[in-house]
Amino acid sequence: MASSSGQISRTIFYISDGTGITAETLGLSLLTQFNDVRFNTVRLPFIDTLEKACDCRDRIQRTFEQDGARPIVFSTLVNEEFNRILGQTGSLCLNFFDTFIAPIETELGIKRSETVGRTHGEINNADYERRISAINYTLSHDDGITDLGLEEADVILVGVSRCGKTPTSIYLAMQFGIRAANFPLIPEDFENQCFPKALSRHREKLFGLTIQPARLAQIRTERRPNSRYADLENCRYEIREAERMMRQQGIHWLDSSLKSIEEISATIMQEIRPSGRK
Amino acid sequence: MASSSGQISRTIFYISDGTGITAETLGLSLLTQFNDVRFNTVRLPFIDTLEKACDCRDRIQRTFEQDGARPIVFSTLVNEEFNRILGQTGSLCLNFFDTFIAPIETELGIKRSETVGRTHGEINNADYERRISAINYTLSHDDGITDLGLEEADVILVGVSRCGKTPTSIYLAMQFGIRAANFPLIPEDFENQCFPKALSRHREKLFGLTIQPARLAQIRTERRPNSRYADLENCRYEIREAERMMRQQGIHWLDSSLKSIEEISATIMQEIRPSGRK
Repeated sequence: MASSSGQISRTIFYISDGTGITAETLGLSLLTQFNDVRFNTVRLPFIDTLEKACDCRDRIQRTFEQDGARPIVFSTLVNEEFNRILGQTGSLCLNFFDTFIAPIETELGIKRSETVGRTHGEINNADYERRISAINYTLSHDDGITDLGLEEADVILVGVSRCGKTPTSIYLAMQFGIRAANFPLIPEDFENQCFPKALSRHREKLFGLTIQPARLAQIRTERRPNSRYADLENCRYEIREAERMMRQQGIHWLDSSLKSIEEISATIMQEIRPSGRK
Repeated sequence: MASSSGQISRTIFYISDGTGITAETLGLSLLTQFNDVRFNTVRLPFIDTLEKACDCRDRIQRTFEQDGARPIVFSTLVNEEFNRILGQTGSLCLNFFDTFIAPIETELGIKRSETVGRTHGEINNADYERRISAINYTLSHDDGITDLGLEEADVILVGVSRCGKTPTSIYLAMQFGIRAANFPLIPEDFENQCFPKALSRHREKLFGLTIQPARLAQIRTERRPNSRYADLENCRYEIREAERMMRQQGIHWLDSSLKSIEEISATIMQEIRPSGRK
């Protein structure tokens, strides 16, 4: 359908017998390729009974009538009967499992184990426990809270205040199960020309973040307007000193200014290459 | 290939011009359907030049020779030339974009905009800013740190200490851009039979988590062994009182014991149904 502005608009349904997060991940990554279309999102997770599948069908059909345009359905439903019911809606149904399970079954020479309604995306319980444990570790080693237990870190991020260390650490823990501590480089360190002692013993785990001064000043201004902390000249000074310190210490770093936390995290993962499977 | 234990084993490649996170999320959700197979994971993100694509091909071919079994490649590469190069490896190449972009193009009647190398999964910058802002909000409203600014929360999770509030809050912020505060219910509240005053004004935003006593005792024991805090009888008492309090206040809750943070978060999203698109 075209909105009053003439822009194309469509309703997107994410439907799953589990959380729907896999369906949404797939859908979002595809829809980024269509910047000019406005998408309205409806999430319908935990569709694990015939009744719920029929409710979905009815809801999609009503949306079709209201929009006057076919909804697009991203589904990870495993149950064939439920998929058949969704197929009755006349929408564009893209079923992720239907499409990819068969070639993998053929390749491996075994049938899938019909795991329905459990969280897709968890290979096994040990992986899940590792992620939760990493989140707890990361939260208790945020922003240099403590230098105890740094020997258990997989990576220790360093950089000036508000350069992106905390959200990156949490993303690393949550997505990859990485124990990511982070430690600020502060004006005192620069004045004393002294790299934090707590970190010297862990040099091989250190990874630096830096940022463009103007971006840093903007972020800090949101937090503390008109402060020395947020002043552009001060930001320039801190970043210059932090980069010099990281160079002296032989620490690899990257500039977070134009990167998402996903991109920063994926880059760090390449650098630290933890052994073993996820 | 079969390992010494007779278990089937395969190498999985996640290949992307971006972070590879979409490819991995989708691959993992498919591989959960094959519990009996051991998968070795190789991540190859940021494959955005011909040279890197050729390096990938060589690496996959070496793995094929070493394993004696076809690797499985999950790819979100958009570039057709790069995909053709990967196709030379003889591996099972499953390309998420190739498969689904064409039907969406047909449906919308427009061509995709060839966004290469940017983070898949970000519809636009406003969404990204919202997620980062939500993470910052959530971290500064963790565990009842402050009752200032609760009016800005999308949801406030309540429950006894270590029932899963913090990781769930962070997941809600990171995945859905939800401002999720969390607030503990503590023994003092139960002794005084008094629901925390700071929360009374925000009843419509409250959502409770509870947990099985044995599971809580286990989690608390890891943190503080042989404490009253971790004692099973004390856990039973706290949970009983917390549930009574939530019932009195008319707060919906769920049991986190057998659910992943993804499942808990998706359930909460259904309850709070924030308006608008992701």
